[in-house]
Amino acid sequence: MSTDKGSSLKARSARGFADRGPAELAAARAMTDKIRQIYELWGFEALETPFIEYTDALGKFLPDLDRPNEGVFSFQDDDEQWLSLRYDLTAPLARYVAENWDRIPKPFRSYRFGPVFRNEKPGPGRFRQFLQFDADTVGSASVLADAEMCMMAADTLEALSVERGQYAIKVNNRKVLDGIMEAIGLGGAEHGGRRLTVLRAIDKLDRLGVDGVRALLGPGRKDESGDFTKGAGLDEDATTRIVSFVTAKAEAATDTILTLGMLVNGTVGEQGVAELGEIAAAIEAAGYSDRVIIDPSVVRGLEYYTGPVYEAELTFEVNDEHGRPIRFGSVGGGGRYDGLVARFRGEAAPATGFSIGVSRLQAALSALGRAQPEQPGPVVVLVMDKDRAGDYLALARTLREAGIAAEIYLGSAGMKAQMKYADRRRSPVAVIQGSNEKAAGEITVKNLVLGEQMSANIADRSEWTESRPAQVTVPEADLVATVRTMLAR
Amino acid sequence: MSTDKGSSLKARSARGFADRGPAELAAARAMTDKIRQIYELWGFEALETPFIEYTDALGKFLPDLDRPNEGVFSFQDDDEQWLSLRYDLTAPLARYVAENWDRIPKPFRSYRFGPVFRNEKPGPGRFRQFLQFDADTVGSASVLADAEMCMMAADTLEALSVERGQYAIKVNNRKVLDGIMEAIGLGGAEHGGRRLTVLRAIDKLDRLGVDGVRALLGPGRKDESGDFTKGAGLDEDATTRIVSFVTAKAEAATDTILTLGMLVNGTVGEQGVAELGEIAAAIEAAGYSDRVIIDPSVVRGLEYYTGPVYEAELTFEVNDEHGRPIRFGSVGGGGRYDGLVARFRGEAAPATGFSIGVSRLQAALSALGRAQPEQPGPVVVLVMDKDRAGDYLALARTLREAGIAAEIYLGSAGMKAQMKYADRRRSPVAVIQGSNEKAAGEITVKNLVLGEQMSANIADRSEWTESRPAQVTVPEADLVATVRTMLAR
Repeated sequence: MSTDKGSSLKARSARGFADRGPAELAAARAMTDKIRQIYELWGFEALETPFIEYTDALGKFLPDLDRPNEGVFSFQDDDEQWLSLRYDLTAPLARYVAENWDRIPKPFRSYRFGPVFRNEKPGPGRFRQFLQFDADTVGSASVLADAEMCMMAADTLEALSVERGQYAIKVNNRKVLDGIMEAIGLGGAEHGGRRLTVLRAIDKLDRLGVDGVRALLGPGRKDESGDFTKGAGLDEDATTRIVSFVTAKAEAATDTILTLGMLVNGTVGEQGVAELGEIAAAIEAAGYSDRVIIDPSVVRGLEYYTGPVYEAELTFEVNDEHGRPIRFGSVGGGGRYDGLVARFRGEAAPATGFSIGVSRLQAALSALGRAQPEQPGPVVVLVMDKDRAGDYLALARTLREAGIAAEIYLGSAGMKAQMKYADRRRSPVAVIQGSNEKAAGEITVKNLVLGEQMSANIADRSEWTESRPAQVTVPEADLVATVRTMLAR
Repeated sequence: MSTDKGSSLKARSARGFADRGPAELAAARAMTDKIRQIYELWGFEALETPFIEYTDALGKFLPDLDRPNEGVFSFQDDDEQWLSLRYDLTAPLARYVAENWDRIPKPFRSYRFGPVFRNEKPGPGRFRQFLQFDADTVGSASVLADAEMCMMAADTLEALSVERGQYAIKVNNRKVLDGIMEAIGLGGAEHGGRRLTVLRAIDKLDRLGVDGVRALLGPGRKDESGDFTKGAGLDEDATTRIVSFVTAKAEAATDTILTLGMLVNGTVGEQGVAELGEIAAAIEAAGYSDRVIIDPSVVRGLEYYTGPVYEAELTFEVNDEHGRPIRFGSVGGGGRYDGLVARFRGEAAPATGFSIGVSRLQAALSALGRAQPEQPGPVVVLVMDKDRAGDYLALARTLREAGIAAEIYLGSAGMKAQMKYADRRRSPVAVIQGSNEKAAGEITVKNLVLGEQMSANIADRSEWTESRPAQVTVPEADLVATVRTMLAR
């Protein structure tokens, strides 16, 4: 908070936006560097589109259909054209691919990473700027492209030290779901709203179990607090069919696919089952069938998916800050969107893409103890004698030339405040050279990690000099070696 | 361009915004990683503020005073408050520091990196989104903080392989300039416009020489095309004084400072000269006086600077794309801005900061041949037999597990098109296994770098098999070793 003495301007970040400090940024960078490495190992190339696009080029493909006219930050340019901040990384990619169609290799594998913006009501843990990391393959109609996304997602989680058994990449196919919807009379544009209610009911299987989903597919469901959620109003037969579909996952992928084959009818549904078969075979051949699994309970909220959909789920439980066990669940997902590039090109441009929710994955790694640990701060060279700033600068330079992060204290406070400063900087080591030490050609090096508890009790310089906690005085020439030894401990 | 068949929606990026491809991104990442390393070595910590801030919190401190009401992308939130996209990285830092004053270590050294946005008329090479890399020290009134910025800028350029002698960090002090302005009767708020004209005239010293600047300080200047630029209208005496100031740089910093001392009068000017003396001494003591130099010709355009100003200049010439020699000049700069945080706090919060123009520096490194060279693409595993996708996936996996970037071809085209694809991907190696090779347990590995010229002439598979340019057929088990040997060549 600003102390705001007599000034009318209040220092505050905008609603729904947050600052990020060094520990969070370092962990995010370590994580995204590893994701990038894996994606490049799979032949995906980096691409970056601008943060601002023409509003019509982005379109509106946000998951929340209840608010079709909101969700995007938009403003008018001085030539009257409307501009928007990107709300995801898929819509700008579709624009890029259409604009550069003749120049790009096809199929075109690319990845991109960065903040996206949602003009939504902010709330606890709900931000209006957040990070996504996307990979997309455009120009391949083969479901091998979808299978590849799933396998790459598995490699990515393992590169981030999520162990096999702690995660699953679940694959389904919208065509199969469409086939079931058609079979129960929910095909066609006029049933879009009811289909969405069905999708949302299925999406709650994890949380509510089969009975909860049954209720939501039928007349509706009363929760423990007594609140009633209206259901999709399906009859008993249709409900059973959906539930059989959603719970069709068997031990072996071939059995799952067999069950699905019996539940669908119509060309689209059958095609969807055949595609799942092809994906399962590819995954088996490439040696990923223990972590990429066919699971019909996966439905993705976005309306633009046209084929395979997939989700990366963390399957272990961790304790939250109150010691309660929580499951992380989904940390990313995606699917095939054959229609998105066609908006510009007027002809088919098949595409499939996978998106990682960066903050969510980072929180999960942190809970797993797999995030990069917080790094110590720099060595602080104390300023004991203001006239000798040049000497202190030279000491800091000597440390830096040895690859050791170091700084001199630039404030105007005394010894005690300088030690407090070093503490706030999480400095592992302080370097001290008063005039006596200078005269003797010596230097004092203090291990702040060892001396942490004791330093709280030190009141002034004379007491300090007497107690000498965890510190050594060495010849100037031994500075680097002494600091190195302390850092290594 | 979109092929746009029957579709009304045109794929185009917004005016003044650009996409960035893999080579540019990789070079930028290599560069910013090095800058980050140096900044952390100097004890600066990472900090990231959001892209969007309250408009009043950002204020308007753009260099172009001619358009005080433009330059910023702004829009109203649903609670009526005005939001803006950040136009630099300094104004958001001032907000952050004021908001977190009691929590941060003081002095507070931090760095940040990312795109900023300007709502300006786009033009060739003039973008509305561009990258900045900033370092700032807040809470230190000592000019050692400014000296540190200059030395860190020198270390940064050398870490980027700009050699000593190819660059100079030039330091000046606004207080000295203010002292001169006062001495010639241009002090006070009412002369702000004329002072700006003087600043701009000084800024052209490099391009127009002393006579050009003289003309611009006096009645005005007619250029070679006959266009007339109105001058600041200073008399002969004032003009001489300014020119003496601007050209005061001597071989030794002490001599420069001596000359400045004779040119100023008044407390502020004298304080400025004393500060430059302190900076020169610190730089000398720390061993940077061969690259950080006191140069009174440096003026920075921003009105908010209150003390030392500094600029990183590349001093060598390179040839542009037409073979003409060009000087890169400034790749970054900054200065002390003691009033910016005070906007919120109502009390002094001294600060100094340095900003790198990332694209400009990247272009310079590229011209110097110091940018990261373009990396080759992945190994492409050709799909000779669609039914054997699983085998090809497994081959790609084997390569990846050995740390070699590899992909399978995911399109539906034949051999020739697949080779063209590999070419577009800049693949160094193609892996080929037809059914005969499979039966024999063998695999063909083709060196595409060697075979580049020849492959253009190959019409079909049979011809290909006969000519075998730069390729070997080896047992399956030798795949990794063979590819490695080819990549190493």
